Amino acid sequence: MLSFESDYTEGAHARILERLLETNYEQLPGYGKDKYCDSAKEKIKNAIGHPDAEVFLIAGGTQTNMIVIDTMLAAYEGVLCAETGHIHGHEAGAVEYTGHKVLTLPQKDGKLSAADAENYLQTFFADENRDHMVQPAMIYISHPTEYGTLYTLDELKALHAVCDKYGQKLFLDGARLGYGLMSEGTDVTLRDVAALCDVFYIGGTKVGALCGEAVVFPKGDAPAHFFTSIKQHGALLAKGRLLGVQFDTLFTDGLYFEIAKNAIDKANRMRDAFACKGYTFHIPTTTNQIFVVLENEKMRSLREHVRFGFWEKYDDTHTVVRFASSWATTDEQVDRLIALL
Amino acid sequence: MLSFESDYTEGAHARILERLLETNYEQLPGYGKDKYCDSAKEKIKNAIGHPDAEVFLIAGGTQTNMIVIDTMLAAYEGVLCAETGHIHGHEAGAVEYTGHKVLTLPQKDGKLSAADAENYLQTFFADENRDHMVQPAMIYISHPTEYGTLYTLDELKALHAVCDKYGQKLFLDGARLGYGLMSEGTDVTLRDVAALCDVFYIGGTKVGALCGEAVVFPKGDAPAHFFTSIKQHGALLAKGRLLGVQFDTLFTDGLYFEIAKNAIDKANRMRDAFACKGYTFHIPTTTNQIFVVLENEKMRSLREHVRFGFWEKYDDTHTVVRFASSWATTDEQVDRLIALL
Amino acid sequence: MLSFESDYTEGAHARILERLLETNYEQLPGYGKDKYCDSAKEKIKNAIGHPDAEVFLIAGGTQTNMIVIDTMLAAYEGVLCAETGHIHGHEAGAVEYTGHKVLTLPQKDGKLSAADAENYLQTFFADENRDHMVQPAMIYISHPTEYGTLYTLDELKALHAVCDKYGQKLFLDGARLGYGLMSEGTDVTLRDVAALCDVFYIGGTKVGALCGEAVVFPKGDAPAHFFTSIKQHGALLAKGRLLGVQFDTLFTDGLYFEIAKNAIDKANRMRDAFACKGYTFHIPTTTNQIFVVLENEKMRSLREHVRFGFWEKYDDTHTVVRFASSWATTDEQVDRLIALL
Amino acid sequence: MLSFESDYTEGAHARILERLLETNYEQLPGYGKDKYCDSAKEKIKNAIGHPDAEVFLIAGGTQTNMIVIDTMLAAYEGVLCAETGHIHGHEAGAVEYTGHKVLTLPQKDGKLSAADAENYLQTFFADENRDHMVQPAMIYISHPTEYGTLYTLDELKALHAVCDKYGQKLFLDGARLGYGLMSEGTDVTLRDVAALCDVFYIGGTKVGALCGEAVVFPKGDAPAHFFTSIKQHGALLAKGRLLGVQFDTLFTDGLYFEIAKNAIDKANRMRDAFACKGYTFHIPTTTNQIFVVLENEKMRSLREHVRFGFWEKYDDTHTVVRFASSWATTDEQVDRLIALL
Repeated sequence: MLSFESDYTEGAHARILERLLETNYEQLPGYGKDKYCDSAKEKIKNAIGHPDAEVFLIAGGTQTNMIVIDTMLAAYEGVLCAETGHIHGHEAGAVEYTGHKVLTLPQKDGKLSAADAENYLQTFFADENRDHMVQPAMIYISHPTEYGTLYTLDELKALHAVCDKYGQKLFLDGARLGYGLMSEGTDVTLRDVAALCDVFYIGGTKVGALCGEAVVFPKGDAPAHFFTSIKQHGALLAKGRLLGVQFDTLFTDGLYFEIAKNAIDKANRMRDAFACKGYTFHIPTTTNQIFVVLENEKMRSLREHVRFGFWEKYDDTHTVVRFASSWATTDEQVDRLIALL
Repeated sequence: MLSFESDYTEGAHARILERLLETNYEQLPGYGKDKYCDSAKEKIKNAIGHPDAEVFLIAGGTQTNMIVIDTMLAAYEGVLCAETGHIHGHEAGAVEYTGHKVLTLPQKDGKLSAADAENYLQTFFADENRDHMVQPAMIYISHPTEYGTLYTLDELKALHAVCDKYGQKLFLDGARLGYGLMSEGTDVTLRDVAALCDVFYIGGTKVGALCGEAVVFPKGDAPAHFFTSIKQHGALLAKGRLLGVQFDTLFTDGLYFEIAKNAIDKANRMRDAFACKGYTFHIPTTTNQIFVVLENEKMRSLREHVRFGFWEKYDDTHTVVRFASSWATTDEQVDRLIALL
Repeated sequence: MLSFESDYTEGAHARILERLLETNYEQLPGYGKDKYCDSAKEKIKNAIGHPDAEVFLIAGGTQTNMIVIDTMLAAYEGVLCAETGHIHGHEAGAVEYTGHKVLTLPQKDGKLSAADAENYLQTFFADENRDHMVQPAMIYISHPTEYGTLYTLDELKALHAVCDKYGQKLFLDGARLGYGLMSEGTDVTLRDVAALCDVFYIGGTKVGALCGEAVVFPKGDAPAHFFTSIKQHGALLAKGRLLGVQFDTLFTDGLYFEIAKNAIDKANRMRDAFACKGYTFHIPTTTNQIFVVLENEKMRSLREHVRFGFWEKYDDTHTVVRFASSWATTDEQVDRLIALL
Repeated sequence: MLSFESDYTEGAHARILERLLETNYEQLPGYGKDKYCDSAKEKIKNAIGHPDAEVFLIAGGTQTNMIVIDTMLAAYEGVLCAETGHIHGHEAGAVEYTGHKVLTLPQKDGKLSAADAENYLQTFFADENRDHMVQPAMIYISHPTEYGTLYTLDELKALHAVCDKYGQKLFLDGARLGYGLMSEGTDVTLRDVAALCDVFYIGGTKVGALCGEAVVFPKGDAPAHFFTSIKQHGALLAKGRLLGVQFDTLFTDGLYFEIAKNAIDKANRMRDAFACKGYTFHIPTTTNQIFVVLENEKMRSLREHVRFGFWEKYDDTHTVVRFASSWATTDEQVDRLIALL
């Protein structure tokens, strides 16, 4: 059955599997000390334009979020995020498990505004009882957001300025970063992300890898003993090559961007088709996620032929659903979907 | 350069990579809900002879240890292990990070004896101050041990009996389980392990997989919400298929045992050669790890041609080193090593 | 200077200090195993009408909240509370420090409604992705609330019913319980609290003790090894007698209720005076906390003679402030305050 | 019945209770912001000769150990201590609960030698695999030790030197510090402790207070937001005055030292009597704890008249027991004991 359920329904890009095969019998050191990890890191540093950056490869997104937040915060510090933030609602409390509170703020289309962050921080630091409270020390955003929306460069700069003013770290969860960067009309580049964030990651799992996220500390100021912290959190792979080969391949000849663009191209075709056939978008997006309001009847009949995600009830006769394209989506699949609309 | 440094220097068994390729474009549900995970679990349940067992696939060994221990113990409980236990010395405090104390006992050739465990438990439960102490609730062993040694069936039964008597869970870390089971002369089978342990895992990372450990609760009594706990510990892979396909392949037509046996065969050839040439074994083993005492001079000259592990200083002129074979070791590699001895 | 800043500005009720003096040289066992702890617990069990209850004495409120929540929840479970809950905003993240997420719900006058709790729980258990989320397992309320308001018996029963229906524990933070129980017009008795809650505590620190909260498990089903858990959380006093003597005194001849009533009587006099002089109440209360809207000018002049708490800005020319009476408040102090209004 | 069971069997020194009474109705700010806390801290700073020190008052010893260790260590760091250390065996895993591993070293008479510490640290920092291990960052000792023994000034200096050399913090648990300082023959003064340690505490609970330990950072470099960390660990008392008044009293006119000396004087009388009557000391001590080898018969008959602590089995017919004197022990009690020997 046709599926637009998510961007992690297929395995890995063919070139990644090829490289895993080609390198398979090379005897390499463990724990990420191999030449493919080194090469991947070098290529990422080049791509972001920060030769002194530090890069670490970690298997999954929740894992990355919990390790980055736990290691960059003191035990008494918490992290600010939009109330729709992935770390708040959909990571089974992994951040709290490490002892840190997630401090939520309002969201609009999945985004956290600099104004709301500033308002919170101003109020906090003016509060005489603040020593009895969790100390905010980091702003977490994702780009694209949970709703597939994107920050503008000005919005990112404004968040960066608030962070500067109030001594907060800016952490960008880029689980779908490729799709954000290749979105038409975005004015945010990978170098902007590197320039504005204290830490961010380049998602592999949802952009063509079997697994893997590349955590980047652009200023080269990773927390001390970050390697040991990764191990302590149970996240160190013995065969680090698995991550190294994948990211090395993704950052060779711009593959990461090329395959991300495929998802955008396909999503654009889908968006055009939905619009053309009179469907309403629940949230306007330009990335690989499309949120459409369907009549329940239509939803049921579509479901017989294609898988997509339930998002939320719209009203008694309508539902918001999500269609996601990916690095692997083909024109033929999009054609078949369009034929069903 | 030739390497006998460890059993995780190569990638994955060729059949695994083939299957990853073949299944790559199938659109599958995420988070381990796919058919390959299901199939792998079924095959493992058949292999252990417990159709009602529960099986979970987790990416790495330290991760598995921390999750199993943390979810099976109450917060005030600790885990007993030999002072050479991997969780005690070489996992960066991952178990303590989850709040549990590792309670150490003496070891002999890497093994924990039932007598030492019983002695500790008897003393503990007779201590009037025990409510001020960490409550022991689990015995952790590895098979093979850190020293490549194996428990006998009688030794496992004795540990099991102590666990029964004192209300302890028995947890067997099988990161190298295949090499233990295929060792010549062992009287311990996979079904014995399943019959005697409350929980154990079948190591994939060191036995032919890119990553992955299969955690087995033979009695089907996994901790409640174990899936959520895996997520909470950051260990849930979006593309669970990566683990599913690997274990499904390893447990098809006995591949796991076949490739483990390769390591044993090669290690046996190496052991014969070392013995034949008059080298001394530091610890006698029958698995894929060989601990040899080398003259420092010899060690240095060997190092120019082959990589192996430093274990410990023996005396001023000798060193204990480790040679490990694996699922990938070839006769040609062994021949080259023997020629150097 | 006159102070109505809080209910913990004085030391302890005179009878408590007397008893500490009288018993001072008795040689008693440590860690709460002394006869005064035993006697205090018996008296509390009698007062709540549950002879099989289990009672534990702990030094402070935040400590009690963190221990109760951490020991009654599994690691993957979270606690629901009103967004104004003390554990959410004013305990420095102590609950999250133990690894549990605080899940917030709307509040009205500081109270959490059964309807809002049910709505959350119904939605949660209908969510197909709930295994990726923190599992709700407890409802935390305080009585009186942060705003000095009280639940009615019907409201408590409704919360209890929601807990029953969705498998949640009901935990009542009674840091100021005495003031709630002695409030005029309340229909909630101590026996009601014991009948409806899975666990609650009777606050000593704010009701006449130097320190101490009495945690009650009315059904006698305290978490296993709760004593060890108290120690593990650093909360076990060597001289448990300090808590035992205090609670034994408070629950002798109804002292706890008598001194709580003093606070209510004084607060009622203050409320009458505020009303009479035309002040506006921000939140209507019947306990020992009074929230009044003051003109900023008036606030400043009052501040020269009396201490009270800043609550929040009302508008550009008015401020909400809090006056609190206590077990120690005298008529003479109230007279002096009234003269200043 | 006569009791020499411990040094926390009585309440508080009479002068402390007097002061609690005298100050009882003063309306004071909460959370340790009152003038008695301020005064106590000033007096302690004077006593140690470090005017720039930072001092914090915390209710109990285990609590203090866990907070100090958790706040001074990074998450990936552990603490070294003798295998008999209180934090290792008798605090219900409170340190591990905060995520840190206790790394044990050999002991002699309860003491950790600089040589053993150096040996561990040297080996650790030479280990190529150390990034997979818990990073040692602090040495924990107690003075007096669990066995009532004392470090000499030279031994403390040697430990300090090892700490300097290997970047370790030196933390001295002074739960019974008074008894150590007033011991005859010791060459260690309070100022020496302050000069050599990065952090230590002056025990109140066992030296005349109802509860309370004064944590001292002699160099004035307490961990950032230490107040918030105390709250986060559940250890902040609303009525901080309880600790303030007690330590202010103990450090007025040398009361702390005077009452500690009482314990030593009484212990010396007891030691003389034991020696005189031919009893054997198991461990030679000069503090308030005396470890005697008793014939089991004698032990049983003594037990009918006096309480003392079981320490360990000596042989089939003998037992090691502990007699402890305290600030409250009277000559008359000692006379009665001697008459029984």
